[in-house]
Amino acid sequence: MNIDTIKNGYVLDHITAGKAMEIYDLLNLKDLKCQVALITNATSKKIKVKDIIKIAELIDIDLDKLALIDPNITVNVVKDCEIIEKKKLQLPERIVNVHKCNNPRCITSIERGLDQIFILTDKDKKIYRCIYCENQLTK
Amino acid sequence: MNIDTIKNGYVLDHITAGKAMEIYDLLNLKDLKCQVALITNATSKKIKVKDIIKIAELIDIDLDKLALIDPNITVNVVKDCEIIEKKKLQLPERIVNVHKCNNPRCITSIERGLDQIFILTDKDKKIYRCIYCENQLTK
Repeated sequence: MNIDTIKNGYVLDHITAGKAMEIYDLLNLKDLKCQVALITNATSKKIKVKDIIKIAELIDIDLDKLALIDPNITVNVVKDCEIIEKKKLQLPERIVNVHKCNNPRCITSIERGLDQIFILTDKDKKIYRCIYCENQLTK
Repeated sequence: MNIDTIKNGYVLDHITAGKAMEIYDLLNLKDLKCQVALITNATSKKIKVKDIIKIAELIDIDLDKLALIDPNITVNVVKDCEIIEKKKLQLPERIVNVHKCNNPRCITSIERGLDQIFILTDKDKKIYRCIYCENQLTK
């Protein structure tokens, strides 16, 4: 199946098959009044099978959060039916107040009000560690 | 946006705008290995705006459950790229063990193991009542 083109908006391509719904929820696409299309298990040359999302409006997208779910996504920006930009996602170096450190002895578990900060310590293995106790982030 | 045709499967058309995700969950479409496409807020001649779901496989669909969520849906059955049947949904006369009666004095709240049965008492207003205590079903 294919979805035809959009005039203005985004095409999120090369989403890992099965991840489209998680992204749909993350970006709150159900609240949009514009058209949103989604295909799961589409055939792909690059990866065997993939999901695709098309959004017919240039909404704000948090690329860092998107990268955390699936860094393989290509974000195509469409204006007047033309792809004017292809954004490659990159894992963010720091994640602030998205996840909590699960080490009960970490200072963030004891002192309230501290920011929960993780930094990327291994890009290939996608490992993040708490800046306070170096505990590895597990989602 | 339009999605091109499927070879075999279903086109769920005229879904009330905003209901596609609920149906996606109800039919467990995320677990399918075949292609599934979904458009929200598509333009429609019959109703101003609608959602559409296409499923590229002839899976089992519980039409009663589908009708309970949205009786306006048209289920098109596609074989060899042709629509061979258009199923109009109808509200089921009886709903068994899908919803619980919320009347604390109903016998189903006291005696365990009784089937939870509701019958359609007003088709136009979509009113179901418990067969034991006549309490109206509220979801």
